Amino acid sequence: MATRSAAGLDEVVAATSRICHIDGRRGVLAYRGHDIHDLARHATFEEVCHLLWRGRLPTRPELGDLQTELARYRALPEPVVRLLRSLPPGDLMDAVRSGVSVLAHHDPDAGDDSAAASRRKAVRLTAQTGTLVATLGRLAAGGAPLAPDPVLGHAANFLYLLTGERPGALAARAFDVGLILHADHELNASTFAARVAAATLTDLHSAVVAGVAALKGPLHGGANAAVMRMLLAIGGDADDRRVEDAVRGMLAGKRRVPGFGHRVYRTEDPRATHLRRMSRDLGEQAGQPRWFRMSEVIEKVMREETGIDANVDFYSASTYHVLGIPADLFTPIFVASRVAGWTAHVLEQYENNRLIRPRAEYVGPEHPQPFVPLAER
Amino acid sequence: MATRSAAGLDEVVAATSRICHIDGRRGVLAYRGHDIHDLARHATFEEVCHLLWRGRLPTRPELGDLQTELARYRALPEPVVRLLRSLPPGDLMDAVRSGVSVLAHHDPDAGDDSAAASRRKAVRLTAQTGTLVATLGRLAAGGAPLAPDPVLGHAANFLYLLTGERPGALAARAFDVGLILHADHELNASTFAARVAAATLTDLHSAVVAGVAALKGPLHGGANAAVMRMLLAIGGDADDRRVEDAVRGMLAGKRRVPGFGHRVYRTEDPRATHLRRMSRDLGEQAGQPRWFRMSEVIEKVMREETGIDANVDFYSASTYHVLGIPADLFTPIFVASRVAGWTAHVLEQYENNRLIRPRAEYVGPEHPQPFVPLAER
Repeated sequence: MATRSAAGLDEVVAATSRICHIDGRRGVLAYRGHDIHDLARHATFEEVCHLLWRGRLPTRPELGDLQTELARYRALPEPVVRLLRSLPPGDLMDAVRSGVSVLAHHDPDAGDDSAAASRRKAVRLTAQTGTLVATLGRLAAGGAPLAPDPVLGHAANFLYLLTGERPGALAARAFDVGLILHADHELNASTFAARVAAATLTDLHSAVVAGVAALKGPLHGGANAAVMRMLLAIGGDADDRRVEDAVRGMLAGKRRVPGFGHRVYRTEDPRATHLRRMSRDLGEQAGQPRWFRMSEVIEKVMREETGIDANVDFYSASTYHVLGIPADLFTPIFVASRVAGWTAHVLEQYENNRLIRPRAEYVGPEHPQPFVPLAER
Repeated sequence: MATRSAAGLDEVVAATSRICHIDGRRGVLAYRGHDIHDLARHATFEEVCHLLWRGRLPTRPELGDLQTELARYRALPEPVVRLLRSLPPGDLMDAVRSGVSVLAHHDPDAGDDSAAASRRKAVRLTAQTGTLVATLGRLAAGGAPLAPDPVLGHAANFLYLLTGERPGALAARAFDVGLILHADHELNASTFAARVAAATLTDLHSAVVAGVAALKGPLHGGANAAVMRMLLAIGGDADDRRVEDAVRGMLAGKRRVPGFGHRVYRTEDPRATHLRRMSRDLGEQAGQPRWFRMSEVIEKVMREETGIDANVDFYSASTYHVLGIPADLFTPIFVASRVAGWTAHVLEQYENNRLIRPRAEYVGPEHPQPFVPLAER
């Protein structure tokens, strides 16, 4: 007999996994047992990729090999660039979805779904997705696509491919930390979509496309862009008082303040801690301390009025903004990071697969309804 | 606390739905309460689309309006045709996924996710997907894309766009019945993937792309192509004895015989009944009775040796083969049909939405693992 479960599969265990551990009550997030605070302080995105895919942090030669491989595949195939150029203006997440889908056709391992080929595809697609997203940002701003710089790491390359300028150390590190913090989060909706697809033994690119499709939704990927739009609407010239009034006005009007609360965490989202620091340091260095200060004020009001904590999205908004990244690119950047986690989950799903096929409870018209011929309807 | 559930969410109720009723024990399948046997005998795919989307069979004027709308949107935008032409040879499901993804950019309602716009997108995308799949088949066979014929219905248009010839009544009806039978099947893996995506409030095209991504997997969409490859491997010139020996050989070698058994049905798949009839009638009319006869023999052996019933895929293989459709196109055709169900489920999900976000049971390395700096690893 079918087991009734909560709407949205709330608190239903849908898989066992060795990748990501979340303890929402204690505010713990860990990849492969490594605490997110350690990773955000001491690791690079490339090390985290190795950790997610291989189950442990890389040795120095292993990291070197991975960096070499990422550098080799970072450039986009020419037909993909041509596609990106040809798309009409619109939501950049549509372009990310189409871009990833078309990357599949040009992967050297297309058609080979062996475990080894899928692992290679994970590395390649992660390398390419950064370039894809940065290139979309560059095209949207009227620039011409650039070739990746083989000397730069993944985070610095992204900023270079987007802006045409090699970033300073703090900017590159802030972006790197953002990539690390967003790389995985257990069975969030997009990862779950990717695993549902992978469980049919579809190929890795298809499963990632399913992830992108889900991440596009405003209930999932759009929150940090919403935070930034809120900050911009309040205005960078607003003093603390005006910021406070704006938030209290939103609360009084029962409008949702984006960037607060989380379905899983009952504490502060542990990822918020690091983005708060990055937002502060970057703002100071760039001579734009205002966005951080506004964020602090909003956080204070929210704590006083609602007791709800900031989540990962809240301080990523001001961090990315100070890095010169437009809000339309925030969710695509989420893809460029989460692709590491999606691919890790897809590889794990393949290892010990079972089709994911729940049931629906039918509540529609009784069966059988009489069939009335068209002429008599 | 999290509720542990069976691997694969087996028998877990993940949603309530008014669309599709399956009673696996009694072998019942119904769309909106209408028994699949009635629909396969008396309805057209267009009527079934209306039923799935609107909740009831159309009146004559409503059907006329829907036919007009489908005809208006059946042609592919030129940039999509250009993309299809530019893709390297490969799995046609990759091309379907990329094609549907790029159709999103060219939809007149792109960026409008209102309920009314999503309903229009469902009609449009269903109209276009038939053309997309037929055009891919035509290009793969070295032909040039054709323009849809406004006089023909959806099924006949498909066969015309694929072969360049207007089909006879029996061929068009056989294909129409195939479309009806595959149009929906409750929370199968691809529909579930589409609903998981839709539950983030992503747009309708994205959700459908997630469905395509999942349907590509051999555990889901590939079975009728596998049946056809089996029939071809046994050989159209094999006598009954050789067919029997081939199947017994597969069973003795513990090889899976495709097209048999179903996760949900404990009886014969009710859809098999109609495709068996179509396969027989079409084979006789086309002077190719052999594929049906082979199928009958295989079914008899399977019943004797395993007691396992044929499923929807088994007789769709010989039906499509006699219609002149290559096996590579079988799963894409499944898309051209299931898109009606996916879009109905996506619209239903939007109506009363809740994010679908289960949990994983973490079984990986204990937290916290010590962080060893790179130089000391």
